[in-house]
Amino acid sequence: MSQDRVLGVIGLGSMGYGAAVSAMRRGVVTWGLDTGEAARARFAAAGGQLAASLEDLAARCDVVQLLVVNAAQTEGLLFGANGAPGLDTLLRRGSVVVASATVDPALPPQWEAKLAERGLHLIDGPVSGGAKKAAEGQMTVMASGRPEAFEAAGTVLGAIAGKVYRLGDKAGVGSTVKMVNQHLAGVHIASACEAMALGMRAGADAAQLYEVICNSAGMSWMFQNRVPHILEGDYTPLSSVNIFVKDLGIVLDAARKLAFPLPLAAAAHQLYLATAAAGHGNEDDAAVGKFYAELAGLELPPKKS
Amino acid sequence: MSQDRVLGVIGLGSMGYGAAVSAMRRGVVTWGLDTGEAARARFAAAGGQLAASLEDLAARCDVVQLLVVNAAQTEGLLFGANGAPGLDTLLRRGSVVVASATVDPALPPQWEAKLAERGLHLIDGPVSGGAKKAAEGQMTVMASGRPEAFEAAGTVLGAIAGKVYRLGDKAGVGSTVKMVNQHLAGVHIASACEAMALGMRAGADAAQLYEVICNSAGMSWMFQNRVPHILEGDYTPLSSVNIFVKDLGIVLDAARKLAFPLPLAAAAHQLYLATAAAGHGNEDDAAVGKFYAELAGLELPPKKS
Repeated sequence: MSQDRVLGVIGLGSMGYGAAVSAMRRGVVTWGLDTGEAARARFAAAGGQLAASLEDLAARCDVVQLLVVNAAQTEGLLFGANGAPGLDTLLRRGSVVVASATVDPALPPQWEAKLAERGLHLIDGPVSGGAKKAAEGQMTVMASGRPEAFEAAGTVLGAIAGKVYRLGDKAGVGSTVKMVNQHLAGVHIASACEAMALGMRAGADAAQLYEVICNSAGMSWMFQNRVPHILEGDYTPLSSVNIFVKDLGIVLDAARKLAFPLPLAAAAHQLYLATAAAGHGNEDDAAVGKFYAELAGLELPPKKS
Repeated sequence: MSQDRVLGVIGLGSMGYGAAVSAMRRGVVTWGLDTGEAARARFAAAGGQLAASLEDLAARCDVVQLLVVNAAQTEGLLFGANGAPGLDTLLRRGSVVVASATVDPALPPQWEAKLAERGLHLIDGPVSGGAKKAAEGQMTVMASGRPEAFEAAGTVLGAIAGKVYRLGDKAGVGSTVKMVNQHLAGVHIASACEAMALGMRAGADAAQLYEVICNSAGMSWMFQNRVPHILEGDYTPLSSVNIFVKDLGIVLDAARKLAFPLPLAAAAHQLYLATAAAGHGNEDDAAVGKFYAELAGLELPPKKS
C-alpha cells in the first residue's frame, strides 16, 4: 500500500488511540495530539509521535481525524476557540478533516461548506466498534463526503479502520447513519437491563437467561456485549451511562428538529438520566440494570473477586 | 434413536406443523389435531396422521404438545371446556403434556399441580424460532419441569426441536425465560421500525442503513430479520402485529403482578396497539414502520413486484 499522506489524530481516547496505532502499524506516518497527560503517555509508550500543538500538527499533516467528545470540541478545533486559530486557517489547502465525533447530522454539512471556503475538505466520518476493535484496526467508519474529500484522504481511512462505508457524496449522511446506530444501541442496552431485571425478579437464573437469549430471537449485539457486565457485577466503564445520556440526547434533539417522534428512544433516554441521577453516571452503561434493581429491591449478582 | 413414545400435537399452525413434521421425519409416531380445515389439509398432505378428536388423540399418545394461541385455549384443552372433557381425564396416567403457548409464567405451576393430582406430568415448554426453523426441526424449546416429566417425555422433545434448554426442575421457569425473550423481541422490532423511519426521514438510504446497522453495535436479531420486510414493502404476516399486542400484553400483566415496572416494554406495547388501531393488526409486525410513516408523512419503500 503506497501511502504518502501524513495523518494527525486529535483526541487519543479509546477510539483515537486505536485509530492512531492502527494507522502506524499499517505504515502511515501518524502524529497525535491530546490535552490529557495520561492519553499522551499511553500513545508515546506505544511508539506514537506527539505533536507539540495544534499548529505543529496542522503543519505536519494532510489528513486530520478528530476523535473528540462532541460537536462543541469539534467546532473549536475546526474554527478556533478562545482566540486561538482553528484547523481552517492552519491546514494547507487540499487537506482533509475527518470529523468522527457523534453529532447532530445537521452540523457536518455546515462545516463542509465553511471548510470548502478555505480550500479544505471534510469527511463526515463517525466511528463505531468500541475500544477493543479500534485498537485492532477493526473499527467501522460511517463516512460521507464529496468525492474530492475521499480522494484527498487517499488510503488513510482504510488504515484506521476494518471497514469504511461510503454512504454518499455529501457530509451529513455518515452522521445520520451513526445517529440511527446510537438510537438502536441505546434502546437495546436499556431493554437488555429491563428484561434481565424482570427475568431475575420472576425467578429465572441470570446466567441461563443470558445463554438462552443469546441464541434466541431476543438477541441483540448489545445484549450479548453488556449483560456479562451484570453477570460479573463489574461496572468498570467501557462506555459510561453518561455517554448515552449524551448520545440519545443528540438523537432526540436531531429528531425534534425534523419534527419526528421517537417514543422508544425518549423512554430509553429517561432511563439513562434516571441511572445517572441515582449516582451511576460514570459507571458502565450496563448500570441501567442497577436502576431497575434499586427501584424493585432486586439483588444483582455481586462483583466476582 | 430408540423411541416408543407416541406424540400428539394439538394446534397445527406454523409452529405446531413444524414440530409435528420434524418429529415424524425423525421417526416418532405422531398424531395431529386442529380445528382448522386448512391446517389439517396441509398436515395430511405432508403425510401426517390426523386424530379424529381430543379423545382419539389422548387414547393414542403418550406425549401431547399444545401449540395453541394462548393460555385460555391451553386451559380448555388441559381441563375441559364447554362441558367437554380435558386431557386431564382423557390421558393415561404417566403421560406428559408439553405446554408451549406463550403464557403468564404464574400459570404453568398451577397446571403442573392440577395435572399431578391425576398422575400426569407437565413440561412448561414455550418455543421460539419462527415458522422456517420449526419446519426444519430447528425450533428452540425453553423447558422446565420435574425430572419425572422429562423422563416421561423420553427423546420426543429432542425430535421436535434443534435445541432443548432444561431450565429448572419446576414449571414456570420456561415461561419466564420465554417472557424475557418476548420482551426483548417486541422492543427490538419496534425500535428497528422507529430507527429506520428516523434514518429515512433524515435522508439516509434505507438499504445502506440496513447493511451498516447489521454490521454495527445497533444490530439485533429482529432488526436483521424484520427490516427486509420494510425494504421490500412486503407486510405478508410471518408474525403479525396482533401477536405482539398479545405477547407484550402478557409480559406487562405478569410484571404488574410482580409490581415490576417496564417503561420500555410499555412504550413498545403502545406502538403495537397504535399500529393495530391504524388498521395494520393482521399485517407483519414490521408494519409498526407504517405507523411511523403515517405519523410523519414518510414514504416507505413500495412493494417489489
